[in-house]
Amino acid sequence: MKPNNETLELLNRHGSVRQYKDTPVSEEQLAAIIGAAQMASTSSNVQAYSVISVTDPGLRSQLAALAGNQAYIEQAPVFLVWCADLYRLREASTPHLAGGNSYEDTTENLIVATVDVALAAQNAAVAAESLGLGIVYIGGIRSKIAEVSELLGLPELVYPVFGMCVGYPAARAGLRPRLPLQAVLHHNGYDTATTLEQVKAYDEESRVYMRERTGGANDTPWSAMMAKRISEPARMQMKDFLQAKGFLRR
Amino acid sequence: MKPNNETLELLNRHGSVRQYKDTPVSEEQLAAIIGAAQMASTSSNVQAYSVISVTDPGLRSQLAALAGNQAYIEQAPVFLVWCADLYRLREASTPHLAGGNSYEDTTENLIVATVDVALAAQNAAVAAESLGLGIVYIGGIRSKIAEVSELLGLPELVYPVFGMCVGYPAARAGLRPRLPLQAVLHHNGYDTATTLEQVKAYDEESRVYMRERTGGANDTPWSAMMAKRISEPARMQMKDFLQAKGFLRR
Repeated sequence: MKPNNETLELLNRHGSVRQYKDTPVSEEQLAAIIGAAQMASTSSNVQAYSVISVTDPGLRSQLAALAGNQAYIEQAPVFLVWCADLYRLREASTPHLAGGNSYEDTTENLIVATVDVALAAQNAAVAAESLGLGIVYIGGIRSKIAEVSELLGLPELVYPVFGMCVGYPAARAGLRPRLPLQAVLHHNGYDTATTLEQVKAYDEESRVYMRERTGGANDTPWSAMMAKRISEPARMQMKDFLQAKGFLRR
Repeated sequence: MKPNNETLELLNRHGSVRQYKDTPVSEEQLAAIIGAAQMASTSSNVQAYSVISVTDPGLRSQLAALAGNQAYIEQAPVFLVWCADLYRLREASTPHLAGGNSYEDTTENLIVATVDVALAAQNAAVAAESLGLGIVYIGGIRSKIAEVSELLGLPELVYPVFGMCVGYPAARAGLRPRLPLQAVLHHNGYDTATTLEQVKAYDEESRVYMRERTGGANDTPWSAMMAKRISEPARMQMKDFLQAKGFLRR
């Protein structure tokens, strides 16, 4: 029998929300969402993330422009910027280090902080959806990452990984089909043949989905969309930016 | 009134599980867990992750040794290795690229894939816990990342980000207190003074927690534990390894 419960149903009906009602999200709701985020697993308890709630209208509108003018960034009652944060950890550690070596600037620690913030944010997303709210992740804030960091006064060893709109949905998009399970789940080793075979099936499925969603105007398969995406240089400043902020130096 | 529901309660009682019963996890349960993982948000639908379920006992025991001999890696009925995966995307794209440029090797795309796999894995964690199972993330597989990748036959543009044990809990640890909400939640900008002030309060709280947990043997505050952690070089091979695998080249 297929396992089911309230939480699984919630996870399985996730779709990003890009139109929000005016209805506010209360302080208590926000605290419950961030509190649930904090309970996610964290590597050796480093808790290497911070989240910035942006309510100031001027700031919000500047961030929306920097992220590529997506209207919902201004419309959503809550806009959160999720940051990987090794600054707190480094500052808290300094008095104990007695001037000795420290390794916050490694590639390993960039991964630790990036994973930590993503686990916390996904718990926040699930918590918000459990309250009847909708969310959308905003990777667009990385397009102008230096400007976003400056606006939010991010210190060294902090970088904005993604934004997140939260609010009551005014409209919901249909659920977008995902790759077949067998494309992502391997057994005892990576199976290149199966994953690529499954992509072919998914290409057909995604064509049908796009055709229906666009009234026939678009039937691009997934692999062609991915090709378009990786054929264009995007956010090429990331390495220099992260190194300037104290990450990824070795 | 403090918002509450079944899902919030589930998120708020998360604690890592390091002792498992023999009771197996069924194929249907695993499919439900990975299916829920697939419904997490993904950057522009790239779905840049793969997950490898390791059931072969020999393989499992080698992985446990490589990850630092944590007994539960062998004991848990399910052991998953979550991988950031740009290989599938690049291979699927190649026929459409007609020999043109492609940018899968950027720092931006390493972040995209690392975030994607973490969001999916956290949905899997929540799904598993909703079924009465427990989980623990295993960052230790990165300690011998080249050997783990070799054992699992990971192609270029795939790297193992963390493992995850899944099974019925035989014992649960107490909930570990997190940083105060105000340490991680900022308003309209990063507040360095508040976050560091809150660390002081947390240092006291974590001393009490450690003292109780160890019967008085240990009362190290959080900041001293963090200092110990960043004063030691850890996984210094990560940058070279990732670049050799085709990531992070620019």
